[in-house]
Amino acid sequence: MSRITRIETADVRFPTSLGLDGSDAMNPDPDYSAAYVIVRTDASDGLSGHASAFTIGRGNDVEVAAIRSVAELLVGYDAEALLDDMGATWRLLVHDSHLRWLGPEKGVMHMAIGAVVNALWDLKAKRAGLPLWQLLSRMSPEELVALVDFRYLTDAITPAEALDLLRATEPGRAGREAELLGDGYPAYTTTPGWLGYSDEKLDRLCREAVADGFGQIKLKVGASLDDDIRRLRIARAAVGEGFPIAVDANQRWDVADAIEWIRALAEFDLHWVEEPTSPDDVLGHATIARAIAPIPVATGEHAHNRVIFKQLLQSQAIGVMQIDAARVAGVNENVANLLLAAKFGVPVCPHAGGVGLCEAVQHLSMFDFVAVSGTWQDRVIEYVDHLHEHFTTPVVIERGRYRAPLAPGAGTEMRSESIAAYTWTGHPKLAEVAGA
Amino acid sequence: MSRITRIETADVRFPTSLGLDGSDAMNPDPDYSAAYVIVRTDASDGLSGHASAFTIGRGNDVEVAAIRSVAELLVGYDAEALLDDMGATWRLLVHDSHLRWLGPEKGVMHMAIGAVVNALWDLKAKRAGLPLWQLLSRMSPEELVALVDFRYLTDAITPAEALDLLRATEPGRAGREAELLGDGYPAYTTTPGWLGYSDEKLDRLCREAVADGFGQIKLKVGASLDDDIRRLRIARAAVGEGFPIAVDANQRWDVADAIEWIRALAEFDLHWVEEPTSPDDVLGHATIARAIAPIPVATGEHAHNRVIFKQLLQSQAIGVMQIDAARVAGVNENVANLLLAAKFGVPVCPHAGGVGLCEAVQHLSMFDFVAVSGTWQDRVIEYVDHLHEHFTTPVVIERGRYRAPLAPGAGTEMRSESIAAYTWTGHPKLAEVAGA
Repeated sequence: MSRITRIETADVRFPTSLGLDGSDAMNPDPDYSAAYVIVRTDASDGLSGHASAFTIGRGNDVEVAAIRSVAELLVGYDAEALLDDMGATWRLLVHDSHLRWLGPEKGVMHMAIGAVVNALWDLKAKRAGLPLWQLLSRMSPEELVALVDFRYLTDAITPAEALDLLRATEPGRAGREAELLGDGYPAYTTTPGWLGYSDEKLDRLCREAVADGFGQIKLKVGASLDDDIRRLRIARAAVGEGFPIAVDANQRWDVADAIEWIRALAEFDLHWVEEPTSPDDVLGHATIARAIAPIPVATGEHAHNRVIFKQLLQSQAIGVMQIDAARVAGVNENVANLLLAAKFGVPVCPHAGGVGLCEAVQHLSMFDFVAVSGTWQDRVIEYVDHLHEHFTTPVVIERGRYRAPLAPGAGTEMRSESIAAYTWTGHPKLAEVAGA
Repeated sequence: MSRITRIETADVRFPTSLGLDGSDAMNPDPDYSAAYVIVRTDASDGLSGHASAFTIGRGNDVEVAAIRSVAELLVGYDAEALLDDMGATWRLLVHDSHLRWLGPEKGVMHMAIGAVVNALWDLKAKRAGLPLWQLLSRMSPEELVALVDFRYLTDAITPAEALDLLRATEPGRAGREAELLGDGYPAYTTTPGWLGYSDEKLDRLCREAVADGFGQIKLKVGASLDDDIRRLRIARAAVGEGFPIAVDANQRWDVADAIEWIRALAEFDLHWVEEPTSPDDVLGHATIARAIAPIPVATGEHAHNRVIFKQLLQSQAIGVMQIDAARVAGVNENVANLLLAAKFGVPVCPHAGGVGLCEAVQHLSMFDFVAVSGTWQDRVIEYVDHLHEHFTTPVVIERGRYRAPLAPGAGTEMRSESIAAYTWTGHPKLAEVAGA
């Protein structure tokens, strides 16, 4: 038996705003940041669990405070008891009545719980000597169902339905695992499309994306219709007819504006339209989806929990579901999200980029392929070539596909040198806001 | 001209769990707490703005950290510029791109912004020498519309529609203000109904509520159907046939459970059913509302922003809308919420109780009566007799009605002795969670 002995946190901020990497219609100057947590035990294996919540700068200290407040509740706990029943562990944290009041199940506190849950999964996978996707893919349907809290989901999927679904794909697991290990998982790239890039850089990066073997690109839109048309024209010329181009408005529009704007871009054969409006607006997304069909609506990086995903699916508001590794309450809630998507037959194409999101979500998509949906048809993982060098097991992209990671763990461990070098010590300056 | 010179915060926690005050199906042992903020300026009037976010214990420190992170952005600002254009001030805080990532517009960070916005309103009202409800009720329709951010709302209400609505009720303002000053605003009481109370205490408090002149009571339900039936029988016998009894499930049920449970309570002639399921589940609330009609569904104390209220109204999910003073981003967002409710013709009956929520929401309902909906038909403000003694201008209830407050400010200033006495210095204990 071992005990949780110590929780360490770090406020890590990368100065990405300097190069306008990550700039979009709503986020002009992000400093990609990680509210980082390490869970340590007194086990002789010396293993620790690492994960983080992703933020874009100011407020990362608040996220760290929230993580500390959640994680400290676990100090002294029997580590095996926590790790052996991750379903119960998830409920312990998410249903703490006091912490629930601060959401419930949304925002800073839910992201903090997610980071702690993910750190425990990282530890569990390291102890098992397996990458997270493989650990999950080798759990029985019953074990997987036990990870999920079906509260508020049963009008869309019951535990029995989830079990049937997992059992139906169980026979093909071994074959798909071999396929995945051989071929990797399809990726698309957002690298060309940041709003702050020049037309020349856009053109060059689009051509590089195709040359590098990516099967899809994505452009940020929504700040200026004229700019969007000009940039889409450049991108379309660079990648050629028929090559999938998705666009991402980052919540910029009201419902009617979204419909009008997207129709004005119709000539560019959009592959999907991402985050057209408020991530809370299920009915608005459904209205937009009906109006712009057959162009699918995609959203999810800000969908704060499984209840929002449930409704997006129930209302046929999304044709592409974009789970995020660090927004909801960790791996368990994303297992719920994958089950919901499989039930409704909607492909999951995770949000990535940020700090370590590519490293994290690849495990979820690979698990989905092997053990849940059983397919990668119409599915791609986002790829952005930022900040991977700061992770101990960075993603490997070959010919536009994620190689299946083999290192034990969840991929969420940052290099200690990077943590030390980018730990933030400053304070928000008036000028930062006054200029906004 | 004066400047914001200093922000003070306090982590105030009252040990309410000792008496099971505030206990319900999801919150067995709340310690009613306030993440408190004071905004100070260098003006010679010596006035300061006070407000808080309400939490129920653990995590109040995280809420304080979030408030500090928001409020410190304002230090050095021209106070008049902020207070004279509260619409712009609201946008400055809510649309800070970095802080948005931590929601957007939900949870810890949004509540923190709400506390800061409310503290500025407290200061603005004190400077005007008016109670907040009167300050708002004397603003022109144009000034009121300028307070509201219509982003994400225009598919439900446009600025022009809001202006028409406010102009339509403008002629009757003076008459209604006089009526309000004479009669006070109708209240209902939740005091009898906490789950942790004995049957004898329930019976006694129900009778006292009627004797005290309240026109409605509310009981917590959802932990045990047998208990609910027994307690409703006691309450119905105590208050008599025809007396309105609402029930509150505090998010306990899934959709099908809610429908079944409420039907099993049908004999008790329920006035409304509050928080039947997840506050994020707009579609679920709509399904429940259709199934249990004509019993109205009520919700809102956890509706995290105006986009959720918009959808609850658009989908006819609620017959009663329960705004909260400390969940959304302060007075401005509640002006938006009141306008939405008026547009859809749904009565607003605010959530109160907690720490200082009665003191705060009375201003919103009174403003609604004088200048927005123009009626108190089917409208009541919740009243709970907790913790009022800690406020400098506690609510006054007479014959079951809130007296209109006359003291300048928003009612949200706590006595300094109370802040000092209940400032929390402890740390979460393992036992608190292990016992959950």
